[in-house]
Amino acid sequence: MDVKAEDFFFGGLKPGNTTNKLGSSVNLVNVDKIAGLNTLGISLARIDFAPFGLNPPHTHPRATEILTVIEGELYVGFVTSNLKGGGNKLFTKLLKKGDVFVFPQGLIHFQFNKGHTNTVAIAGLSSQNPGAITIANAVFGSKPPISDDVLAKAFQVDKKTVDWLQAQFWMDNNK
Amino acid sequence: MDVKAEDFFFGGLKPGNTTNKLGSSVNLVNVDKIAGLNTLGISLARIDFAPFGLNPPHTHPRATEILTVIEGELYVGFVTSNLKGGGNKLFTKLLKKGDVFVFPQGLIHFQFNKGHTNTVAIAGLSSQNPGAITIANAVFGSKPPISDDVLAKAFQVDKKTVDWLQAQFWMDNNK
Amino acid sequence: MDVKAEDFFFGGLKPGNTTNKLGSSVNLVNVDKIAGLNTLGISLARIDFAPFGLNPPHTHPRATEILTVIEGELYVGFVTSNLKGGGNKLFTKLLKKGDVFVFPQGLIHFQFNKGHTNTVAIAGLSSQNPGAITIANAVFGSKPPISDDVLAKAFQVDKKTVDWLQAQFWMDNNK
Amino acid sequence: MDVKAEDFFFGGLKPGNTTNKLGSSVNLVNVDKIAGLNTLGISLARIDFAPFGLNPPHTHPRATEILTVIEGELYVGFVTSNLKGGGNKLFTKLLKKGDVFVFPQGLIHFQFNKGHTNTVAIAGLSSQNPGAITIANAVFGSKPPISDDVLAKAFQVDKKTVDWLQAQFWMDNNK
Amino acid sequence: MDVKAEDFFFGGLKPGNTTNKLGSSVNLVNVDKIAGLNTLGISLARIDFAPFGLNPPHTHPRATEILTVIEGELYVGFVTSNLKGGGNKLFTKLLKKGDVFVFPQGLIHFQFNKGHTNTVAIAGLSSQNPGAITIANAVFGSKPPISDDVLAKAFQVDKKTVDWLQAQFWMDNNK
Amino acid sequence: MDVKAEDFFFGGLKPGNTTNKLGSSVNLVNVDKIAGLNTLGISLARIDFAPFGLNPPHTHPRATEILTVIEGELYVGFVTSNLKGGGNKLFTKLLKKGDVFVFPQGLIHFQFNKGHTNTVAIAGLSSQNPGAITIANAVFGSKPPISDDVLAKAFQVDKKTVDWLQAQFWMDNNK
Repeated sequence: MDVKAEDFFFGGLKPGNTTNKLGSSVNLVNVDKIAGLNTLGISLARIDFAPFGLNPPHTHPRATEILTVIEGELYVGFVTSNLKGGGNKLFTKLLKKGDVFVFPQGLIHFQFNKGHTNTVAIAGLSSQNPGAITIANAVFGSKPPISDDVLAKAFQVDKKTVDWLQAQFWMDNNK
Repeated sequence: MDVKAEDFFFGGLKPGNTTNKLGSSVNLVNVDKIAGLNTLGISLARIDFAPFGLNPPHTHPRATEILTVIEGELYVGFVTSNLKGGGNKLFTKLLKKGDVFVFPQGLIHFQFNKGHTNTVAIAGLSSQNPGAITIANAVFGSKPPISDDVLAKAFQVDKKTVDWLQAQFWMDNNK
Repeated sequence: MDVKAEDFFFGGLKPGNTTNKLGSSVNLVNVDKIAGLNTLGISLARIDFAPFGLNPPHTHPRATEILTVIEGELYVGFVTSNLKGGGNKLFTKLLKKGDVFVFPQGLIHFQFNKGHTNTVAIAGLSSQNPGAITIANAVFGSKPPISDDVLAKAFQVDKKTVDWLQAQFWMDNNK
Repeated sequence: MDVKAEDFFFGGLKPGNTTNKLGSSVNLVNVDKIAGLNTLGISLARIDFAPFGLNPPHTHPRATEILTVIEGELYVGFVTSNLKGGGNKLFTKLLKKGDVFVFPQGLIHFQFNKGHTNTVAIAGLSSQNPGAITIANAVFGSKPPISDDVLAKAFQVDKKTVDWLQAQFWMDNNK
Repeated sequence: MDVKAEDFFFGGLKPGNTTNKLGSSVNLVNVDKIAGLNTLGISLARIDFAPFGLNPPHTHPRATEILTVIEGELYVGFVTSNLKGGGNKLFTKLLKKGDVFVFPQGLIHFQFNKGHTNTVAIAGLSSQNPGAITIANAVFGSKPPISDDVLAKAFQVDKKTVDWLQAQFWMDNNK
Repeated sequence: MDVKAEDFFFGGLKPGNTTNKLGSSVNLVNVDKIAGLNTLGISLARIDFAPFGLNPPHTHPRATEILTVIEGELYVGFVTSNLKGGGNKLFTKLLKKGDVFVFPQGLIHFQFNKGHTNTVAIAGLSSQNPGAITIANAVFGSKPPISDDVLAKAFQVDKKTVDWLQAQFWMDNNK
């Protein structure tokens, strides 16, 4: 085969457009963008946050994430899974420039810019194709919608609330 | 070491108690219950459903699940992850006795008994410690609670609604 | 690609036909039957036993098996590998409905219905393509046959006995 | 820790004693003999054969084997697993000095010296603890013995023959 | 166990001290610095370069690296392994801010700041303990030294040159 | 598919031609030579040494190697990676016939015949495609050459020396 340097290169980890509802933008460099990552088990992302921008609760079904803040500050957290004797614990930290935080594989986590300036983070992910599931979008914005019987019971709200939520526009901040 | 047959045995995959808000009960046999499963990468669960019982949207952070119905019927579904050109697709199926369905690793899925009789399912999971994250519980029932700023923005509701949700009792149907 | 719910579904884990020499029938749902299992590392089987039916000594070259009895009773066992200071230990257990047992990867194991009623078991296996090697069939029923010099020496019998065994019909209870 | 060269060294892959019923001897260098192999996923064996010596049908539950003959000749074979449309195929080859053969993970295989001179082989195995199951020994020589009901049915012989076989001495050629 | 947020946090990915012979500094956040990375298969590094600073040819024995430039420019390259029909190919690229490059597992690679300003890069590595082997240091600076017979022959220089090289101070830019 | 015994066979692990500058020859049997090795994670090599022959410092980017001497003697060594408190330790051993040594994944190692007779070794490697990087060749013999700015700084020599080295013929002893 005719392998070349470009097969291991991506030229576009530029500042993301955060002019959206969430005020954040994720730019993931996975095997779709660098063919040479195939079978190598890693990818990289840049995440931009406007002031008060949020990367909403989400999971990566096939990867652990390790993130560092390179500009601004970032309030981050993840929730542990169900456990006898008390799961669903929330672990949070306010990260300053140069701080590093780990989000273990498959756990629900979020990143929130509580400050008045932009924040930029770089993250490594332990899969060439980590995937991302934005919880609110997958639950209330799937196509077709999940039965409101299911969601009303699961979220302890009435069906009207579910129907209203399902009628919203669920923005995906992953490009 | 003094290995014996009991290290590979568990005696309790009995009908679960479904007299609860969700009308379901999951009994997972993982490495905590059978020590001999260590490093072997598999576990097994029995899931019981009362009429209209629900195993609410959840993920297994470290496992794929393959399920078969051994009594009754079961409406099941999972939602794909974010994807360019359209992710968050819902795939559903009404399973009858003897039908089999796969929930790929880390994806949000649910199981719902739409019928008037009990349903029982057996599932294999591809990890000795698959973990389970009940989405509503992890999001609205974590300890301490996730900031309502984060959840209001993520779920497109006002903070009051978030606070009300966080004040509910979030039942865990996993024993 | 045009993925759909059917790619994660199999409709045929029905009671097996046990009217055969062994009085048992294995119905394995692997990646050949559910394409969506590809790369996901798990499969599921239903095993039916007539009274005194036997799933004869066999191995899965690429999987651990975890089994539960959903109807009847089942006498199960596996043999450990060669070990200094004493390998080839037999571990057995009489499983009742709801009991669970693990057969570690690659070890020789069997399941025997000692009772007068039918028995049904469901098993999870830690590979999308676990494979199955029925020991007697592979040893005495291979095509072409293994040299009777080899088998006579290995099994400490004369060649005539080997030849007689190789002339038998070796039934495969895996569909 | 105080790691040293000896942790990666084993000094005893010497000619094995083949003065036994099988006329063969396996000397496996696994993690028990070289502690430094831990987590590294490989081991090595020397196998000696007297004239007409046999390494009888066996499996490695956790490894593929790749073997080369360094002295003499060796008749080798393995049997494939059950398959729709015809499994249990025997693949054999007469190996001369310098020939290489692969025995895929978990499959039943044997090595037989058909010649009048000694044969020596070296094999690599894809696990630091591959394990070995000598089929005849595990089936007829386990402690305690497998029920003769099970073995009589599985091997299509009467119980007397099973009992006779179980009364034999089953030699283990693995040191 | 008493897990807490700090187990997933590291507070020190600060600008490195590049006042050294190589003009570079690597700060790796692996499982030694974040205990919560255990079994999760990923780590993160910040690499600082003074003008004309060099991260000299090295390998990671257990990881692929994916790197992005967050300040300045960086000339990077890796050499492929031996291959029939021509291995040892050099692939290089001049990376600008926001560019991403992949160094496949175990291959020799380097990063060089050809410019007059500082350069900063962030890299993800596909192991919680990737390891680093600085080629010149391992070859000429090992303790005890490698026999000069070996090195003279391997590097096609006389033993005096080897001895002179072995007498130098080999600086390790990894903290 | 039409699998046959030949897919698991290679007929050419013959004595290598050591009439070359290094006095050694490596004959690796990987998945390119035995198609049946695919996905099985192992390969095998024969290494021949003339008197004073050298297998020069090299790494396998994707494999651990376990080696045994079957003829002659062999002086072997590997260098550990960078470590706080002292890495780059050299571990060596003079192997006699029947001795075994392990070279952990990705570490720089060499094998040198210090004696007046031929030496032959057989090695197992933990990958069907382990790769090999001859350090001197990859560093000084790459095509195109690595910038002499980079190599002069890394190896603490002047550019003239680098240029002279790069002008040499770098022989590859791997067939």
